[in-house]
Amino acid sequence: MDFATLIGLATGIGLVIGAIFMGGSILQFLDAPGAMIVFGGTTAAICVSHPVEEVIQAFNAGFKIFSSRKVATQEVVDVMVRIAEISRREGLLALENIRTDNAVKKACKLIADSAGPALIQDTLRIEIHSLKRRHQIGETVFRSLGTFSPAFGLIGTLIGLVEMLARLNDPKTLGPAMAVALTATFYGALSANLFFLPVAGKLKARTQQEVLNLEIIFEGARCILQNNNPLLVRDKLSSFVPPKERTYVR
Amino acid sequence: MDFATLIGLATGIGLVIGAIFMGGSILQFLDAPGAMIVFGGTTAAICVSHPVEEVIQAFNAGFKIFSSRKVATQEVVDVMVRIAEISRREGLLALENIRTDNAVKKACKLIADSAGPALIQDTLRIEIHSLKRRHQIGETVFRSLGTFSPAFGLIGTLIGLVEMLARLNDPKTLGPAMAVALTATFYGALSANLFFLPVAGKLKARTQQEVLNLEIIFEGARCILQNNNPLLVRDKLSSFVPPKERTYVR
Amino acid sequence: MDFATLIGLATGIGLVIGAIFMGGSILQFLDAPGAMIVFGGTTAAICVSHPVEEVIQAFNAGFKIFSSRKVATQEVVDVMVRIAEISRREGLLALENIRTDNAVKKACKLIADSAGPALIQDTLRIEIHSLKRRHQIGETVFRSLGTFSPAFGLIGTLIGLVEMLARLNDPKTLGPAMAVALTATFYGALSANLFFLPVAGKLKARTQQEVLNLEIIFEGARCILQNNNPLLVRDKLSSFVPPKERTYVR
Amino acid sequence: MDFATLIGLATGIGLVIGAIFMGGSILQFLDAPGAMIVFGGTTAAICVSHPVEEVIQAFNAGFKIFSSRKVATQEVVDVMVRIAEISRREGLLALENIRTDNAVKKACKLIADSAGPALIQDTLRIEIHSLKRRHQIGETVFRSLGTFSPAFGLIGTLIGLVEMLARLNDPKTLGPAMAVALTATFYGALSANLFFLPVAGKLKARTQQEVLNLEIIFEGARCILQNNNPLLVRDKLSSFVPPKERTYVR
Amino acid sequence: MDFATLIGLATGIGLVIGAIFMGGSILQFLDAPGAMIVFGGTTAAICVSHPVEEVIQAFNAGFKIFSSRKVATQEVVDVMVRIAEISRREGLLALENIRTDNAVKKACKLIADSAGPALIQDTLRIEIHSLKRRHQIGETVFRSLGTFSPAFGLIGTLIGLVEMLARLNDPKTLGPAMAVALTATFYGALSANLFFLPVAGKLKARTQQEVLNLEIIFEGARCILQNNNPLLVRDKLSSFVPPKERTYVR
Repeated sequence: MDFATLIGLATGIGLVIGAIFMGGSILQFLDAPGAMIVFGGTTAAICVSHPVEEVIQAFNAGFKIFSSRKVATQEVVDVMVRIAEISRREGLLALENIRTDNAVKKACKLIADSAGPALIQDTLRIEIHSLKRRHQIGETVFRSLGTFSPAFGLIGTLIGLVEMLARLNDPKTLGPAMAVALTATFYGALSANLFFLPVAGKLKARTQQEVLNLEIIFEGARCILQNNNPLLVRDKLSSFVPPKERTYVR
Repeated sequence: MDFATLIGLATGIGLVIGAIFMGGSILQFLDAPGAMIVFGGTTAAICVSHPVEEVIQAFNAGFKIFSSRKVATQEVVDVMVRIAEISRREGLLALENIRTDNAVKKACKLIADSAGPALIQDTLRIEIHSLKRRHQIGETVFRSLGTFSPAFGLIGTLIGLVEMLARLNDPKTLGPAMAVALTATFYGALSANLFFLPVAGKLKARTQQEVLNLEIIFEGARCILQNNNPLLVRDKLSSFVPPKERTYVR
Repeated sequence: MDFATLIGLATGIGLVIGAIFMGGSILQFLDAPGAMIVFGGTTAAICVSHPVEEVIQAFNAGFKIFSSRKVATQEVVDVMVRIAEISRREGLLALENIRTDNAVKKACKLIADSAGPALIQDTLRIEIHSLKRRHQIGETVFRSLGTFSPAFGLIGTLIGLVEMLARLNDPKTLGPAMAVALTATFYGALSANLFFLPVAGKLKARTQQEVLNLEIIFEGARCILQNNNPLLVRDKLSSFVPPKERTYVR
Repeated sequence: MDFATLIGLATGIGLVIGAIFMGGSILQFLDAPGAMIVFGGTTAAICVSHPVEEVIQAFNAGFKIFSSRKVATQEVVDVMVRIAEISRREGLLALENIRTDNAVKKACKLIADSAGPALIQDTLRIEIHSLKRRHQIGETVFRSLGTFSPAFGLIGTLIGLVEMLARLNDPKTLGPAMAVALTATFYGALSANLFFLPVAGKLKARTQQEVLNLEIIFEGARCILQNNNPLLVRDKLSSFVPPKERTYVR
Repeated sequence: MDFATLIGLATGIGLVIGAIFMGGSILQFLDAPGAMIVFGGTTAAICVSHPVEEVIQAFNAGFKIFSSRKVATQEVVDVMVRIAEISRREGLLALENIRTDNAVKKACKLIADSAGPALIQDTLRIEIHSLKRRHQIGETVFRSLGTFSPAFGLIGTLIGLVEMLARLNDPKTLGPAMAVALTATFYGALSANLFFLPVAGKLKARTQQEVLNLEIIFEGARCILQNNNPLLVRDKLSSFVPPKERTYVR
């Protein structure tokens, strides 16, 4: 569980509700047509602008950031160093039976097959390319949601304003009607800035982390094939890790 | 038929009309001069900013997203694996008579002609480049429409406001006149966010899919020429497919 | 004459004037100080932000889009195929006397001089680079004009508002004074969205077309020098042309 | 201590407070719910959009710009020239015991190990890549804060406006209530433009300086290995230094 | 002296002052707290966001655009052709004593030292890289000023509005107080659009010109070393010059 993300979101919602209670009642902020336009319109726009599978995939990715633990850079370096040690001690073929996650396994299998370094680079290049493409979808979808929702907030407010202005007989109803019209803008701005855009940001950070991990595996495999010295492999891959987080446990 | 796109658009329009009926009458949102300025002005601006053929081509592409089925990545991989199998079993020349779509056919013909790998790469590089260029036109045109229409919405509202303010004798007419002025902004914001920008987004997603398909054909052809082993071809090209969608049917 | 561009612009202006007449009088939209600030200020800003020669060059390019005919991609391919045929039939030297436009002539002369392929690539690379640079100036200037004119529209409106608010004695003059203040914003938004930004867009489309033409000449020359077969040249260069526009006239 | 940054920030805050006192009282600008929404909401959004470690790391980096001295380009050039002199006089192995900062030490150790130039380039390329990645985090976080804080300022003002408009009985309370609602926008705009965005800018400038320093070390190491002549090294690396700051102390 | 820039700026200021006089008095646009916040706040923000030396360097560069003459592309081509002639007639060593500006001198010295072409390319690549970096600072600083000044204009107006609304007893003072509040926005918009952003634009144009000049020197030096034929050098470098400005004076 990634508690920080969850606490961040909960605190944000709590603060907004708290601020609302300090000045009035939350009932003033409930408006069915506004919610229909902002959330319905945003959903409709995202379904037109992205294939349905991508929208579903993006929401899956969006929920996952609250639950999954990210893999630290140092761990990936350690895995590659251990693989270098095994391949030196027991030969390249020993890597065939190693049990790891998808990308490392693919790299090991290629080394074990004694496939040329060019093929390894090629395969891993495609793997990185394809990972970036898949992961960017989530970010793109949430970024689009964060652009559409304030726009539909404005549309909702415009509808409210036009209807209010068209029957401007009684100036006393002007205030409350305008308050209702503004809630649509409020929905759009709040959902974009407290949910859609931050989630897009977190998905981007996750993608960068996973691309970095693949790059370490890529460099590690290249290293093992060029000069199979576990110490050199550790030295080279350590450059990827921020100095403070580096652990030298030789 | 791509029902999701159609349903998305219909739902969005339905929700907006529903929200309008909940608060007033749809007649309040009909305004001939506003519509003239927003839709006429946007059309005029797009005709100045893009060659006419490109605008027509873009609208064709825009309508196509409601009707055409996208080709899944896995299918393209399977086609290339089958081509690898044929070329292995029956020789490279057998590819000359294969019946497939345009890009795969071009790749096959070049392999059959035993043209060098450099020429194949060259031709396919140009093909990708040219596909990107052609497909981006649609996205660019719809993105421009999505920028021009809110701008002309603002222009329409400005015209309404100036005319209203210039004859500010009777404060009672102020409300309805301002309501009419605001409908132009409403037209601009709604058409941009429910139609133009989402369609531009979908066209971008389609282009990325088709570029990916061409890249798979490109990598597959390279693979076949380097080391004609269908299993290796499948292995390498599978990296392009998201893990969950991969089908291993050996 | 490129009638589409001219008709687009005329229609846009006509629609705006029509919409104005439907709701009031065009006299309400004439405001000398507003015009001074928007058009004078925009001109001043563009003269500070770009060298004078570039501004003149940009306006020349801007007027040219209403008059010149664009060269179709297929025509350039045909020219290069014809050059391949001539060079095959009569030898490379025959290209020295060919009468074509500037870029093709340069390519021919270099082939005729039997200059190495590296030199040809080099020269044409510089030619593309330099064409892009020259043509982008026009786009950049009009894009800047399209950014400055709404900004000066806002400045004009601010001046009008400050002057109106400073002498707020008679509430009856408030409306007309505010109408006058808003015309500056109207001038800025209209000139940007109906003229400056669309012209910048058209100039960009033209540049992309001319870069594509140079790339075809570049690829064609490379083809002729590698393997002087007119059929291969046509095959390769056809990839640049959208499938529907391709003409096979063997 | 980087006094300029501190003085800049202090002057900015002083000027704003001064301007407030010239027209009214600072008490009018204190608003607890507004502050809660702007600062609490921005913090919540940043905790969702970035991993907690990155936010902490960014604030550490943000505070450091007020305290640390930047390393001038000329100093790094001088260090590399001195290393070239040592390696020429005492041989490459003498570099093993040199005492410098992290990056230079790594370069020296690799030269001393007589590792091939390819390995040196590789290691330093990774080092630059990884430095950019680490340093960009700070900039990205502050840039996000500078985007979220005005958005939450708007949200705070919307809450205030809705509550004010919903109980629009007494027109006399309208003014003060609207003043309170606007303070949230004021908090958001001020914190973004006087703190978050400028700090993001300074962090970017620092990153560029450190990348430049690494590039100089990289070029210097390449130079030493190609042709170990301290004068040539100084000549080449001097190109990195702005002409006015170059010191020729031969 | 670059009169066009100076006249542009003077005309712009003149037009704005003229428009102000047509509708009221310039005294209505003087507001000490507004000026303090806009100009003081912008200065403070730029001092936090950029190192002080860079701000000073940027203002020096900003003043220089009113005074210095730009070096035309054709002149640089002519210089390189003359150098090719000298090096052919009198040998490469003759270039050692040539008296030209900084970059050409560096190129000549390297040729005279019969340094390999790789070293020349390297040195000139660094030189271009470093020139871009130095010149971009000026553009970046003015671009930041052009972003900060409207933001502080808004902050100034917000302060004015909050203070006005907080003491909304007498509706007669509302107009003039709001006029004063709006002047801050006026200062921010005017200084950004008439000074900061246009100067940033001109600095960018200057940088592009100087990079182009360095590229011509770079290509010229490469040409001289490959095949020292002044006619070929002129032919190749002429591609950099727009066709109309080319002078053939053989």
